[in-house]
Amino acid sequence: MIDIATRVWNHKWKIDPIVRSLIDTDFYKLLMCQSIFRNKPDTNVTFTVINRSSKVRLADLIDEGELREQLDHVRSLSLTRGESTWLRGNTFYGKRQMFRPDFMEWFEGLRLPPYHLEKRDGQYELTFEGRWPEVMLWEIPALSVLMELRSRAVLQTLGRFELQVLYAQAMTKLWAKIQRLKSIPDLKIADFGTRRRHSFLWQDWAVQAMMEGLEGAFTGTSNCLIAMRRDIEAIGTNAHELPMVYAALAENDTELAEAPYKVLADWQEEHEGNLRVILPDTYGTEGFLKRAPDWLAGWTGIRIDSGDPAAGAETAIRWWKDKGEDPTKKLVIFSDGLDVEQIEALHRQFVGRVKVSFGWGTMLTNDFRGLAADDALAPFSVVCKAVSANGRPTVKLSDNPNKAMGPVAEIERYKRVFGVGQQAAMEVVV
Amino acid sequence: MIDIATRVWNHKWKIDPIVRSLIDTDFYKLLMCQSIFRNKPDTNVTFTVINRSSKVRLADLIDEGELREQLDHVRSLSLTRGESTWLRGNTFYGKRQMFRPDFMEWFEGLRLPPYHLEKRDGQYELTFEGRWPEVMLWEIPALSVLMELRSRAVLQTLGRFELQVLYAQAMTKLWAKIQRLKSIPDLKIADFGTRRRHSFLWQDWAVQAMMEGLEGAFTGTSNCLIAMRRDIEAIGTNAHELPMVYAALAENDTELAEAPYKVLADWQEEHEGNLRVILPDTYGTEGFLKRAPDWLAGWTGIRIDSGDPAAGAETAIRWWKDKGEDPTKKLVIFSDGLDVEQIEALHRQFVGRVKVSFGWGTMLTNDFRGLAADDALAPFSVVCKAVSANGRPTVKLSDNPNKAMGPVAEIERYKRVFGVGQQAAMEVVV
Repeated sequence: MIDIATRVWNHKWKIDPIVRSLIDTDFYKLLMCQSIFRNKPDTNVTFTVINRSSKVRLADLIDEGELREQLDHVRSLSLTRGESTWLRGNTFYGKRQMFRPDFMEWFEGLRLPPYHLEKRDGQYELTFEGRWPEVMLWEIPALSVLMELRSRAVLQTLGRFELQVLYAQAMTKLWAKIQRLKSIPDLKIADFGTRRRHSFLWQDWAVQAMMEGLEGAFTGTSNCLIAMRRDIEAIGTNAHELPMVYAALAENDTELAEAPYKVLADWQEEHEGNLRVILPDTYGTEGFLKRAPDWLAGWTGIRIDSGDPAAGAETAIRWWKDKGEDPTKKLVIFSDGLDVEQIEALHRQFVGRVKVSFGWGTMLTNDFRGLAADDALAPFSVVCKAVSANGRPTVKLSDNPNKAMGPVAEIERYKRVFGVGQQAAMEVVV
Repeated sequence: MIDIATRVWNHKWKIDPIVRSLIDTDFYKLLMCQSIFRNKPDTNVTFTVINRSSKVRLADLIDEGELREQLDHVRSLSLTRGESTWLRGNTFYGKRQMFRPDFMEWFEGLRLPPYHLEKRDGQYELTFEGRWPEVMLWEIPALSVLMELRSRAVLQTLGRFELQVLYAQAMTKLWAKIQRLKSIPDLKIADFGTRRRHSFLWQDWAVQAMMEGLEGAFTGTSNCLIAMRRDIEAIGTNAHELPMVYAALAENDTELAEAPYKVLADWQEEHEGNLRVILPDTYGTEGFLKRAPDWLAGWTGIRIDSGDPAAGAETAIRWWKDKGEDPTKKLVIFSDGLDVEQIEALHRQFVGRVKVSFGWGTMLTNDFRGLAADDALAPFSVVCKAVSANGRPTVKLSDNPNKAMGPVAEIERYKRVFGVGQQAAMEVVV
């Protein structure tokens, strides 16, 4: 029997929205948003989408009208009562009322600000400008919309049967990875794959697969909406945008050199325990740790997000030892371009020496490599970054020169101020 | 939206029937049935189910009550008007009215005869006795019911997510096989997998996968119901039961030696073209061809169903050449325990030398090897055979002594009469 009402209901939709909730975003965006809302609410920022995979010509693949419809739909969203209740009432990292009443009140009234969209050289120029706490919430929906519209453009060419086989293959592939991960003792791994996901439904399936396959080893998801619906932990701490904007706002080189630590001083006032995780690579991990104040060594852990992850973790271990800290009590979160092989190797190398944890992103939620003709569904590397703050350009160096961004002269200045020497270049795949 | 009516409707079913149509059977059963209905309608036969995979303890896995319910349901079936219309009106092997009006009238009134079921040593003894044209129609439904009840018993232990992953894996596996087959030029292959299928729905999916993946290289299915619903060719000619029963009815050794040829003489009266396919191995291919009458060399082809398939085909080619026939005009159908590797190898060896064709069975419709714990869904070898005719035991030798059946003394007598010497034993997997 066909449910005529359901079919008619489905036909009434003008579009099939990709982002259907303001909390279909990464948990750390909300934590950072609250911090910004308190510490830098009036900063004017520009965020822009950068497609590092220039051979994926998004403007040729994705119809501009469809893209605008999806972005307009995101702008129509506001926090629902149930979402607000969950954010206000849920326990995050063991703490109730993580989100303060003044922030929640502001968030409940929020609509995302306008976007600017242009086509250029087969790519979309998509930028967002305005107050930092509002603009920064565009990052994840903008990326999810672009990723999923690209998926849809490719899926559009497949027949019903091909689609069924495609998802059967993707499920089989992911399940095989999970079976391999299952055999790693004491594994701790979370889903960090919202921004580069194949689609919302696929991320949701991937999370269910992790829950089913890994049980306790799966610690949660960065995606708030999925965390709420599946009743699991929301995971995340902070990201590069904080030091990048703080640094851009610095009035001189002295303030610039202090900016990354100022970020963490502000963070320390707000958060404790597992939320005190250092992201050291914005302007080079080596120099960051060398000049770090002593109180930072007391933090819970570190997140390794660029460069050679093993080298980064060894640097952190040495630093903790120098500071008289016991590395076995410290958390190391690996989160850069991971797949099963790296997870296995890093776990082998560091288990017992530190508390190891993994944030698994693109290869969890978008490993469609080899599943479509011309590999047209392979994930690609698109980011949405703060490029200026109060009219000044931002800079990111990271531990991989291929991930550096900003005006050349500023990059040189930052390298000088942060004492960054020779870096090993690594290919950025996802 | 939940379709309440559909859910309530589904709840009303007392059982989920495995066989839902009298034509959910192999096409050759209907061809043979018509032949028997004309030539030997009053022969009394006993068919019995034999589980060659004795380590699969069916009586421990399958509830007797459920088995009886399923078999009783099969007995409740009769030909529907649409099925009858299709059999009467459809073109089979290019011929209209393949089924004669007197046969159709009889078939329309048919209900399958009673069954006898007993448990013994962890196995079911399931036998059918009565008039040959009626009893013989039990073969395929009896096997499908046993196979699918075993699948269900195992699937019963899996969760909803595990089931989804299981079928995703099975689809991926089958699709990968089809992609390999796709690269074989001029392949001709049909589905022969009804009797050992994982389930009806899975066979139906496998057929769709073959249609979608192989297009013209997929020549059709042995399953009449699926052929009708999917609007593709129904495939099949004749099987061992004809010579086995004819042989059992022979009054002396002379008649016995003639029996296999008498079967084909009767067949030749009814059928032409691609339906004139010799199945030579019932009492040994070598001797059968050596003593075959000249008119048989004029037939369209041969089906190789036991023994070393390459050796069998080489024997046939030599025989055709001896008889002055051109082997490149002859059809060789391989149908014994095939999987992709054998199909590729046999195709390579015989393409251009004969017209090669494949009847792909168990490994098409039931390759769940390695997909469940303890390989509990791996296919197993169960058959349903004529064991006696008018009170006399039947005998099958085939080209593989492991497939021989019948009383020892009778096997010896048949070997003597048909001049069967040393045979190479081959493992029977499916």
